[in-house]
Amino acid sequence: MHFGSDNQTGASTQVLEMIQKANSGYTHGYGEDKWTDRAVQALKDTFECDLEAFFVVTGTAANALALSCLVQPWETVLCHHQAHILIDESTAPEFFTGGARLMSITKRAGKITKEHLHEYFRLAGTDYPHNTRAQALSFAQSSELGQVYTPQEITTLCAAAKHYGMSIHMDGARFANAVAALDCTPAEITWQAGVDVMSLGATKNGALAAEAVIFFNTELARKYRERRKRAGHLLSKGRFFGAQFIGWLENGHWLDLARHANQLASQLAEGLSAIPNIRLAWPVQANEVFLILPKTTTESLEAAGATFYEWYPQGLPPETELHKGETFIRLVTSFTTRNEDIAAFCAVAGK
Amino acid sequence: MHFGSDNQTGASTQVLEMIQKANSGYTHGYGEDKWTDRAVQALKDTFECDLEAFFVVTGTAANALALSCLVQPWETVLCHHQAHILIDESTAPEFFTGGARLMSITKRAGKITKEHLHEYFRLAGTDYPHNTRAQALSFAQSSELGQVYTPQEITTLCAAAKHYGMSIHMDGARFANAVAALDCTPAEITWQAGVDVMSLGATKNGALAAEAVIFFNTELARKYRERRKRAGHLLSKGRFFGAQFIGWLENGHWLDLARHANQLASQLAEGLSAIPNIRLAWPVQANEVFLILPKTTTESLEAAGATFYEWYPQGLPPETELHKGETFIRLVTSFTTRNEDIAAFCAVAGK
Amino acid sequence: MHFGSDNQTGASTQVLEMIQKANSGYTHGYGEDKWTDRAVQALKDTFECDLEAFFVVTGTAANALALSCLVQPWETVLCHHQAHILIDESTAPEFFTGGARLMSITKRAGKITKEHLHEYFRLAGTDYPHNTRAQALSFAQSSELGQVYTPQEITTLCAAAKHYGMSIHMDGARFANAVAALDCTPAEITWQAGVDVMSLGATKNGALAAEAVIFFNTELARKYRERRKRAGHLLSKGRFFGAQFIGWLENGHWLDLARHANQLASQLAEGLSAIPNIRLAWPVQANEVFLILPKTTTESLEAAGATFYEWYPQGLPPETELHKGETFIRLVTSFTTRNEDIAAFCAVAGK
Amino acid sequence: MHFGSDNQTGASTQVLEMIQKANSGYTHGYGEDKWTDRAVQALKDTFECDLEAFFVVTGTAANALALSCLVQPWETVLCHHQAHILIDESTAPEFFTGGARLMSITKRAGKITKEHLHEYFRLAGTDYPHNTRAQALSFAQSSELGQVYTPQEITTLCAAAKHYGMSIHMDGARFANAVAALDCTPAEITWQAGVDVMSLGATKNGALAAEAVIFFNTELARKYRERRKRAGHLLSKGRFFGAQFIGWLENGHWLDLARHANQLASQLAEGLSAIPNIRLAWPVQANEVFLILPKTTTESLEAAGATFYEWYPQGLPPETELHKGETFIRLVTSFTTRNEDIAAFCAVAGK
Repeated sequence: MHFGSDNQTGASTQVLEMIQKANSGYTHGYGEDKWTDRAVQALKDTFECDLEAFFVVTGTAANALALSCLVQPWETVLCHHQAHILIDESTAPEFFTGGARLMSITKRAGKITKEHLHEYFRLAGTDYPHNTRAQALSFAQSSELGQVYTPQEITTLCAAAKHYGMSIHMDGARFANAVAALDCTPAEITWQAGVDVMSLGATKNGALAAEAVIFFNTELARKYRERRKRAGHLLSKGRFFGAQFIGWLENGHWLDLARHANQLASQLAEGLSAIPNIRLAWPVQANEVFLILPKTTTESLEAAGATFYEWYPQGLPPETELHKGETFIRLVTSFTTRNEDIAAFCAVAGK
Repeated sequence: MHFGSDNQTGASTQVLEMIQKANSGYTHGYGEDKWTDRAVQALKDTFECDLEAFFVVTGTAANALALSCLVQPWETVLCHHQAHILIDESTAPEFFTGGARLMSITKRAGKITKEHLHEYFRLAGTDYPHNTRAQALSFAQSSELGQVYTPQEITTLCAAAKHYGMSIHMDGARFANAVAALDCTPAEITWQAGVDVMSLGATKNGALAAEAVIFFNTELARKYRERRKRAGHLLSKGRFFGAQFIGWLENGHWLDLARHANQLASQLAEGLSAIPNIRLAWPVQANEVFLILPKTTTESLEAAGATFYEWYPQGLPPETELHKGETFIRLVTSFTTRNEDIAAFCAVAGK
Repeated sequence: MHFGSDNQTGASTQVLEMIQKANSGYTHGYGEDKWTDRAVQALKDTFECDLEAFFVVTGTAANALALSCLVQPWETVLCHHQAHILIDESTAPEFFTGGARLMSITKRAGKITKEHLHEYFRLAGTDYPHNTRAQALSFAQSSELGQVYTPQEITTLCAAAKHYGMSIHMDGARFANAVAALDCTPAEITWQAGVDVMSLGATKNGALAAEAVIFFNTELARKYRERRKRAGHLLSKGRFFGAQFIGWLENGHWLDLARHANQLASQLAEGLSAIPNIRLAWPVQANEVFLILPKTTTESLEAAGATFYEWYPQGLPPETELHKGETFIRLVTSFTTRNEDIAAFCAVAGK
Repeated sequence: MHFGSDNQTGASTQVLEMIQKANSGYTHGYGEDKWTDRAVQALKDTFECDLEAFFVVTGTAANALALSCLVQPWETVLCHHQAHILIDESTAPEFFTGGARLMSITKRAGKITKEHLHEYFRLAGTDYPHNTRAQALSFAQSSELGQVYTPQEITTLCAAAKHYGMSIHMDGARFANAVAALDCTPAEITWQAGVDVMSLGATKNGALAAEAVIFFNTELARKYRERRKRAGHLLSKGRFFGAQFIGWLENGHWLDLARHANQLASQLAEGLSAIPNIRLAWPVQANEVFLILPKTTTESLEAAGATFYEWYPQGLPPETELHKGETFIRLVTSFTTRNEDIAAFCAVAGK
């Protein structure tokens, strides 16, 4: 009954085996090796396009390095009010960009829409350099509230962003879950929809520590190598990080893992929906379940050994408020969640 | 009819004369001179306390240097949604603090209250270092919307901020106008009310270019000298900046200048209030007048040579919206505004 | 015949097996897990003292994060003219410290001595904040020129540094090789000799990607967690990095690996010394061999498939210059270097 | 007998009068006024070319802002071992560039030559991004050791710098003295010789606080406005800083002031040369005199009220060392130095 986060489980066997395979012989260091090359090729195949890709070990590094390629230190990145870059990554975006600003443009919405952009630009001052100019939009797929943007939604959002001259970053910490949920191609919800650069996370979905920064707009990657090096994120034994991506992508393994997590989240949602006094805060679209439930139930679950996080009240949907005695929690499933975990959780919750 | 900003006029004669007086003989450079010493003493006398004070040439430098002494690069500064530091100083606060974050905690309010702080902390995550910690509050006296905090309001606000462990910065770009408006002592609305550090602006009210960063909490000034030097804000001929403050403070000159500006703003408000279809957006408490008026009137005023700025719609009071055909503008009076400017403006507006 | 660098080989079996063992069940993320705890305990046992330790993935991150805890952005770090932090880590130290300065205080010497410090301080200006103050000394053990500081040398150097009020950082990317070479305890050449903080590298000597930042002076670690997080170096699945250190340290494995590398470097030096026209630039004390040899020999070696780097001319010892037709190269041995590699290399070199 | 620095005297009457003249009526703020425009035009006339120019209040700001337009945060600026940017401006260059590095390429030389550049590049690593790339050269005219580069020397130096792909910055804190000394046009030793951007200092030579950053290569100025604003160096009452430059440049006033200072320095040198046991360390070419003299003489001078600074020993010429009992001092003359100061100083020194 561990639903704290999908980074609290281990690595998939297929990923570990590829690390093992890569552990042979000599290679150049610093990502100039055939394992890294193969991993980049696997990404090109997966996204069906040319691209530049770089491997780092944390989502925070991936996001912040990506953003640092999109904005100058005196510019602004627009994002969701619950964006991981805004609330869970300390001031890493400011650090890597040299002091650019993050600005939330939503309030209670589950996803960013073009209307949020229009409203921002309607109000924003344009007396540069006194005012700061918004030059990048960052959004998460699937979102921090477990919502999945459709290809059409992304296309519309990116078009609006580009209308305002912005570059677009997608935080794909749970991108695999989104692809699995939409049953679309990775290309359809990235470069074909207008995304310039993405952080593709493997760590939460089967890797040890492996995130890719992928530039579909390769022009933006020009200074990436310098930024990565001076941030201490250029790995000397690069082969082991390329290997993780090879193992993860091979034969659709990443989507198998994500489908499992999504499927278990659906089961969890279904089981919990049937219980009186428990409400789903958001529709369950990927591998995250946001629940409103009595505090007494939350306590019973904790007492029974279930793990999960109480969530930020501002993560509630519009016009949804907690009643007295209710709590708002987040449950995350992963590739290692088992049917019996779901059953056990629902049993305790329904008592 | 020049109401664009109080920085669009020149310097007062008394200030210029003191510069002239200081232009004699040799002194040490870099603020180690008797003019600087005298100016600091004048500030001690004015504020009736011990303090550390440093002179710089812009409000942006004063604010950003002050904030850099209050927060670490991974911390957050809370401020008003219309704060000059947030919307008019590019990303200077981020630059000087090494990447700390600004966070607006108001929406439509004219002043920050303790309730805004409570609401912020109710929602803010405390899972450090993932979340960032709010360690400073910055507010402006008088505010960017022309509102003046009473001594009691500041005392209450500072007490709430200190309850949360924050240091308090006051942006006093128009502090003289606030003192003149409240008819209180400078001490009552600064250190006696709980303010740790302030930016005291003379430039908008009679100086050439002179702003003081004043530390009432002198412990916070420990690294100020290093920060000022490496930001290029240590003036070599420091005497000329000390002299400006001496001339400005001597015999209550600063308050005379501010009283004039306030008085003229009151006259302007009074004259405009009598005109149909013109509304004051905010009560006029210092030297700024925020007006809602027909676009046609705005155009007539511009045609007649009046200068002023259209203001941000988010600067409107709560529940106040522009009707079709209305504009929202800001008028600022200064020590050089003349009665005939007021009369002429009202005449055109009332036609 | 691969002598390019000790980061061009893979990971040791014992380290990989510990990763495998750690891949079971759920743990908290971000280093709050028992594997991380065990690894820190193993470091305490190894160094025979209390300490704080944090795991990151690159030596650059370890060094730069450590330095950022020792100096303010307006201070200076003194180092060797061939220091990795100075010439091989881009401007990572500047980035992490927020703009502090690196200053080389040697020229041709193999190690830093207290005389270098005295000379620096004899010449350095002390008109702060105009001049910058040297507040930290960083040196490498074993050094970038393959030299090993004796316990006495470190004690003397640290005492001189402390005399000038500096904190001391040791870059231990090849610390294992130094311990193996000296046959001393790790404590004797670190905290007992005056070192405040060290970067302990496992990557070059058997790990996948694992470096520890170890604070013997735990007061200096106060802001480390915030700095690591905002630099994107807080690993979510921390267990796998703790596990690497556990496997590496267990049963003296790290020293076995280092001894092998050192031993092979000695054999290489011995074999090469016997060859006419080949000179050792520096005494071989750890796992690096610096050679001066005819360009024709270098070409023969490359043609035979040997890999190594031509080295910086300023890495030559004092009063040693290359003669016409000579090249200066560096050979590094590792835990996977084989006797036959040595033999083959010497055979080609001696032809 | 005040020879401490040319920033320890006041402002010239002509400059102050122009400030007075500018103190009339309303203008736009932030440098969008006719005084600023006139000052820029005066610079175009002075340098006989198109250019972009911006006014700030300190030499440190001028230099650091200029450099920040020339290098990326991971690049290096080459400079003289006595450069003001290196030893007297704290870590301002690092701060403004976002962490770029300064590297001295001289040792005891009075000026940088192309040989210094060649030697730097012979030794510098080019394994980017591990190594940092030198992208800018900064040198001072006149130099911090009172030496003046001839047009030919600058042309040769800039050509060498450009050969290596570098941009060139001239620190002209005492540029007026160099022009006066060379009796050349300002153009001949700046853009015609290959300089891309310069800091032109008026403060040391008659202004209150006025430095211009002048881009001859206007492409490099693209992000200057944003950098100046967020560094708090955009002055609101810009007219007063434009006015200083107008007054300073008008009718060759700046060169008259500089000629006076140079002339007095020559007299001082001449007078002192005749005294036994006193040596000029460097030829006197502008308004600085570097002396080696007995400590007892230094003490007599101080006792007689003379002011000056003891200088850094590394500022001595090649192969010049202090003998026992000698001191090394710097004397600076200015536009207010009087013949009687020279006579009095020489009289005491010669006793």
